[in-house]
Amino acid sequence: MEKVFASIITIGDELLIGQVIDTNSAWIAQELNKLGVQVKNRVAVGDLWDDIWQALDEESRKASLILITGGLGPTADDITKPLLCEYFGGKMVVHEDTLAHVTLLFEKVFKRPMIERNRKQAEVPDVCTVLKNEKGTAPGMLFEKNGVIFVSMPGVPHEMKWLMQHHVLPMVETRFTRGVIRHKTLLTAGIGESFLAEMITDIESSLPSHIKLAYLPNYGMVRLRLTASGEDATVLETELTSYFNQLLERTKDYLVIDEDLPMELVVGKLLKERNQTLATAESCTGGYIAHIITKHSGASAYYMGSVVSYDNHIKEKVLGVSSTTLNTVGAVSEDTVKQMAASVRQLMQTNYAIAVSGIMGPDGGTPGKPVGAVWVAVASADKTVTQLFHFRFDRSRNIELTATNALNLLRQLILGKL
Amino acid sequence: MEKVFASIITIGDELLIGQVIDTNSAWIAQELNKLGVQVKNRVAVGDLWDDIWQALDEESRKASLILITGGLGPTADDITKPLLCEYFGGKMVVHEDTLAHVTLLFEKVFKRPMIERNRKQAEVPDVCTVLKNEKGTAPGMLFEKNGVIFVSMPGVPHEMKWLMQHHVLPMVETRFTRGVIRHKTLLTAGIGESFLAEMITDIESSLPSHIKLAYLPNYGMVRLRLTASGEDATVLETELTSYFNQLLERTKDYLVIDEDLPMELVVGKLLKERNQTLATAESCTGGYIAHIITKHSGASAYYMGSVVSYDNHIKEKVLGVSSTTLNTVGAVSEDTVKQMAASVRQLMQTNYAIAVSGIMGPDGGTPGKPVGAVWVAVASADKTVTQLFHFRFDRSRNIELTATNALNLLRQLILGKL
Repeated sequence: MEKVFASIITIGDELLIGQVIDTNSAWIAQELNKLGVQVKNRVAVGDLWDDIWQALDEESRKASLILITGGLGPTADDITKPLLCEYFGGKMVVHEDTLAHVTLLFEKVFKRPMIERNRKQAEVPDVCTVLKNEKGTAPGMLFEKNGVIFVSMPGVPHEMKWLMQHHVLPMVETRFTRGVIRHKTLLTAGIGESFLAEMITDIESSLPSHIKLAYLPNYGMVRLRLTASGEDATVLETELTSYFNQLLERTKDYLVIDEDLPMELVVGKLLKERNQTLATAESCTGGYIAHIITKHSGASAYYMGSVVSYDNHIKEKVLGVSSTTLNTVGAVSEDTVKQMAASVRQLMQTNYAIAVSGIMGPDGGTPGKPVGAVWVAVASADKTVTQLFHFRFDRSRNIELTATNALNLLRQLILGKL
Repeated sequence: MEKVFASIITIGDELLIGQVIDTNSAWIAQELNKLGVQVKNRVAVGDLWDDIWQALDEESRKASLILITGGLGPTADDITKPLLCEYFGGKMVVHEDTLAHVTLLFEKVFKRPMIERNRKQAEVPDVCTVLKNEKGTAPGMLFEKNGVIFVSMPGVPHEMKWLMQHHVLPMVETRFTRGVIRHKTLLTAGIGESFLAEMITDIESSLPSHIKLAYLPNYGMVRLRLTASGEDATVLETELTSYFNQLLERTKDYLVIDEDLPMELVVGKLLKERNQTLATAESCTGGYIAHIITKHSGASAYYMGSVVSYDNHIKEKVLGVSSTTLNTVGAVSEDTVKQMAASVRQLMQTNYAIAVSGIMGPDGGTPGKPVGAVWVAVASADKTVTQLFHFRFDRSRNIELTATNALNLLRQLILGKL
């Protein structure tokens, strides 16, 4: 069976001057992977004729499916469409269905007059198959050359996703005979990458060549991912599960969960199973813990809310932290987070509370309380557990680490491990 | 003068299966750009010998500076170091300074015994210049071949950044004669990309070939960016400023700010200048507004805190929204956000408040209040302004759009434009 390789080309100067972070590629790669298509390369090029042309040439030698995003806007810096037209030897024609769709969008959704520039978005090379884009004005375009399929999509994430789900992924399923790829991921906490590697070294070296192990360290935790590729899904699943179970057994003292879930959903799952609730009181994380919990649909089943007491007066006024505490041991102290946790749990009438207070940097550190010092409290009706962390990173990473470690501490409290 | 082109190669399977979003490349590109080095290409490849080798070959034909991140960990899936050794024709030797540094890190920072696997991190190809990594165990490595400079760095963001700042960027400054690149960016709100393009079409077509205009639409706003490249910084600045001023004048009715600032910092700047303060009451955004404000150091000068009233009882209990309001018009209503704003402004004693309540999706929509319906209130002592938005996107984008538009509404209130 033929193995299908894909390449992703993202087009746009904004990617090369760092003004925009590319989130599209990760999403596309995930979706293709589920279908057993392996992404071989990801390339970003600017809005430059020769560079785009060269990327098309190079990638079509490596892959049989080339997904292109970006460069399709209505403005003059977007040159991808005329370039594709010339690359595939076509000429530009008006695509009537697209014109009708664009016209309708302007009438009904944007409620603005349509101008010539918008009309141009309905022009496509006559050598492509048009993929209707219900989410925007720029249609997707599919080309074929020497057995390679090229699909051009807008760079706007929700438009790209819609085109992938409604056109590209179904096309991939029918057009390619694909291999089977399966992943299994487990999450560990409390052990470094090298020590984990030592612990499982014999399992790792016993893996057959079609099963790969990857170490994905992040936020003081390490995920282990097994990736198996083959032809028979059932055989592959059985084989993969056998190795995965060996890893689970070996790492059990450090195991958080046997799937690829972020920490906030691991905690959410525990709370939901127990029909319990959580509130947070955040100082240094400034709402980030609340955000990562509520960015997932369904969080309202277990999450009540947060008091973000960024200013010290709010800690006193809204959370009732005693002024004595604030004036003696200060806002970044065990006493403060204990009072914050107790108070928010009471205020929001929840089973559990998380409270954090620390110094995220780059400013605000003192010799006694350096940048990265964070007090965390997790509390239930019966028990309050506190921990002092020292993170050594920049502001945004210190915030992320605080959130993940606070949630991990709560996880252990819920499981009765503290 | 020679123009310097760079390529970025990121190595790691996790990038190709979409498990990790690459934020390193954007940061590297920004820093190089400031020095007048243009990133020509960005490539991501997996932990595969042939693919990495091919990427090195291809990119070295396009650029004179190749920055490589990732693949340097202590585990078996990381093959970059032996590959680089073979590619540049060296052999592996222990680097004594690195060994001493790694040993020290284990003793003083990690406080764990060091194992053979960690010792290996001190081995480097004898054909490279070692770049000391004070932030971690894997050193940076610099190679040269046919006049092209290659630098290999770990993929961990704060380690990579440290190596860039302390070794790579200073090296670039001395080793390359670079061109000058200057950007100027303005932010508009309330006008679509095509209409903006029509409005400035004559300015755009009058631009000389070394000044490029880019449209960067996002969150219902459009940034316009002029990029000029040349040799004389003073001449270039003058020329760029002249075109930029034309754009500022032409777009003045829609102009938010004449620099590349995110909306939360535009608002923060206004508050700080006026010595005024802000509190937020968030339902559907679940702490995201608080987070984007507080992720910037210095926010404590104007931001007091937030009540994240994710559950309706919290709206009633903590923010005093009347039960009549919640039981009749409901939580997603003009009345609710008005009461939330007034209450949090009172509670936190601030000049301004923002309150939001809406339905972010994918579930929870009703015919009367569909997914994407969001009520926003912004309030000062004298005035409360509300607006109903209808966003049409997925949950995460709806949250982002709510935050940016709420902050933009506050901006207009502060400026007396409402």
